[in-house]
Amino acid sequence: RTDSDRLWDSLMEMAKLGATAKGGVNRQALTDLERQGRDLFIQWCRAEGCTIRIDTIGNIFARREGSDPNAKTVMAGSHLDSQPTGGKYDGCFGVLSGLEVIRTLNQHNITTQSPIEVVAWTNEEGCRFPPCMMGSGVFSGELEFDAMMARTDADGVTVSDALDAIHYRGSDSVSPDEIKAYFEPHIEQGPILEDTDTTIGVVIGGLGQKWFDLTLTGLEAHAGPTPMNLRRDAMMGAAEVTQALNRIAFDHQPHGRGTVGCMTLHPGSRNVIPGQVKMTLDMRHWEPEALESMGQAVTAAVEEICQRHGLEYQLELTANFAPEYFNKACVDAVRQGAEKLQLSHMDIISGAGHDAMFVGRVAPAAMIFIPCKDGISHNEIESATPEHIHAGCNVLLHAMLDAAGA
Amino acid sequence: RTDSDRLWDSLMEMAKLGATAKGGVNRQALTDLERQGRDLFIQWCRAEGCTIRIDTIGNIFARREGSDPNAKTVMAGSHLDSQPTGGKYDGCFGVLSGLEVIRTLNQHNITTQSPIEVVAWTNEEGCRFPPCMMGSGVFSGELEFDAMMARTDADGVTVSDALDAIHYRGSDSVSPDEIKAYFEPHIEQGPILEDTDTTIGVVIGGLGQKWFDLTLTGLEAHAGPTPMNLRRDAMMGAAEVTQALNRIAFDHQPHGRGTVGCMTLHPGSRNVIPGQVKMTLDMRHWEPEALESMGQAVTAAVEEICQRHGLEYQLELTANFAPEYFNKACVDAVRQGAEKLQLSHMDIISGAGHDAMFVGRVAPAAMIFIPCKDGISHNEIESATPEHIHAGCNVLLHAMLDAAGA
Ligand SMILES: NC(=O)NCCC(=O)O
Ligand SMILES: NC(=O)NCCC(=O)O
Repeated sequence: RTDSDRLWDSLMEMAKLGATAKGGVNRQALTDLERQGRDLFIQWCRAEGCTIRIDTIGNIFARREGSDPNAKTVMAGSHLDSQPTGGKYDGCFGVLSGLEVIRTLNQHNITTQSPIEVVAWTNEEGCRFPPCMMGSGVFSGELEFDAMMARTDADGVTVSDALDAIHYRGSDSVSPDEIKAYFEPHIEQGPILEDTDTTIGVVIGGLGQKWFDLTLTGLEAHAGPTPMNLRRDAMMGAAEVTQALNRIAFDHQPHGRGTVGCMTLHPGSRNVIPGQVKMTLDMRHWEPEALESMGQAVTAAVEEICQRHGLEYQLELTANFAPEYFNKACVDAVRQGAEKLQLSHMDIISGAGHDAMFVGRVAPAAMIFIPCKDGISHNEIESATPEHIHAGCNVLLHAMLDAAGA
Repeated sequence: RTDSDRLWDSLMEMAKLGATAKGGVNRQALTDLERQGRDLFIQWCRAEGCTIRIDTIGNIFARREGSDPNAKTVMAGSHLDSQPTGGKYDGCFGVLSGLEVIRTLNQHNITTQSPIEVVAWTNEEGCRFPPCMMGSGVFSGELEFDAMMARTDADGVTVSDALDAIHYRGSDSVSPDEIKAYFEPHIEQGPILEDTDTTIGVVIGGLGQKWFDLTLTGLEAHAGPTPMNLRRDAMMGAAEVTQALNRIAFDHQPHGRGTVGCMTLHPGSRNVIPGQVKMTLDMRHWEPEALESMGQAVTAAVEEICQRHGLEYQLELTANFAPEYFNKACVDAVRQGAEKLQLSHMDIISGAGHDAMFVGRVAPAAMIFIPCKDGISHNEIESATPEHIHAGCNVLLHAMLDAAGA
């Protein structure tokens, strides 16, 4: 068993870096605060005798050697960066659970056949530098290194400059081929485990995603003198697209998701018919064909709606990730861990993107979910119980030992 | 006949004050640029021998005496302030047409029985200091003087301070009882005259208005892991309210209008279900009962939509103006003017609010519309032809002479 207090104390210690007034964390990727988090993590790993590697995008790998010099590594991890108004558990729970596994092995003098390695991926959140899951994306070849280094934040600072500024541009090359199995513990960020009173989510994979940027252009005109039948109201189009997206998601249950998260109206005056609306569409599904069908349905709906309202439109696909189905052996190792520990568990699909979904493209991977309060994350009120944190970490220990060979 | 070139030259001279790069005007109420516009207008009026009165809210009255010392005054006017990206004609056309009438009477040595008076109302646009039509609203008792003086702009400057800063807080008391008839020439700000190839709109009144601020509150949650059926998506509600408002407006044709001009989503992130949406509703109608019925229908729709989506809401009525039906004699004077001049004309209802609609509550009033290009106003590309400007001013001359007695 892992040490519940030790893990909790480390989580709370890490949460001091960027702590916000409302009990959350603001420790965005590649800031000096996140540098402090990286330093603290490395200091803790070195104290456990780990060797540290840092790759060219700043991913940190902390390694505890195994008995077999030819064995591939069994890896755990997640990320240390947070949203601007983020919580204490999203990311850190995975990284520090990996560290807790190493601490437990050291404490009990256990030698594993495979090396055990903990990884902190760079910029999972993507809020400072889009896109999200940048470090694992580059690692897995899903995202292109040069393009990512050139990405800028709102102040025009590049990833490359930010990495240099915090001295975390490494030169170690770490290959996916080194990985025997990768496990990522994470809070669910959704309501299912809590609703069903389940402790462990055995994550069998993650939804595919399609993100669109949509601009609808009509004709700006005065709200009073312009008769209804002579309008080209971009907001009318935006309202119908929103409803179409939701209807399409409902038509693709249980796995379909459709969300309009951003919308801006131009000129944005209460007595002016909006001449232009810019909006985002986020679509997700578990089956590639269904995700394609959703994308086609929304494209057709936009076309039809715009024609009916005399609008022009621009529909741009800004992200397009296939669903990820995790490795069966890794998933089984997580399920068996929960069973051995007699923890309530259920198979679950991740609705959110995670580093494990990119790692899973190039190496065997799986995830362990625990409940979070009201399913809320990306919010300072994000909360998870010490019991669930401990349970998730114990499942990780079992799964890693199972994969690493004792 | 009025002098077409003289009026046009004055319009172009006035348009230099606050001229924008795109050919429009930025001369917002009670700024130093608008002060220059007021000064120029007064200078022109004094050159015609007018006496000037300025009331406590800064409305300017320029008077040419009549032959009968007991006769009430025949008034024309509009406003000199503009939108931030406004045009050259909205407001100025009415004020300078009134001045052109006085110039024409002087040129031809015509004495009228009633005095002729031109008014420039303070802050018609309301963009710097809400609400719109502030000067005529205070004059007519629709808006409360003390409350208006305390209104602030985005920098916290009060109307009272702004009036003092440009030295336009007057002390003259001008009463609606002095007015025999008030005429306001204005560009239509809509497409109807242009669409029907008509030169003069005989404005028989203006639509009543109801403005609402609506806040919808649901639950902010992650767009990926949150199943469709467990969402409380404020944007879903906002989309349905937008459609309901439009359906209600279409159900109240030909006079109903419904517009959503502003909408802001919180937190406004592409992969977060909006927990809150703030939006504005602008509803208009010609019949008081129909306007009430539209207001009740939208209130009921908001209630039903919010219940269905598990949303809370706050619906606040921020403006509530009854429709205005102009004085029959004034309207007839406008129509007869157009007929005498053999100008194509049609009766028309103003969809926009105008100073005349507040003046009309307390004195006989009517308006004269001319076409504007593509029905567009509140835009730097606002445009009207010299021919239409001239025609509108000639109709004003006839209507005023008719009312003033030659
Ligand atoms: N885990 C997580 O919040 N990922 C962000 C990307 C997404 O799924 O929207
Ligand atoms: N004439 C004009 O644009 N008035 C503004 C008030 C409104 O009708 O929305």
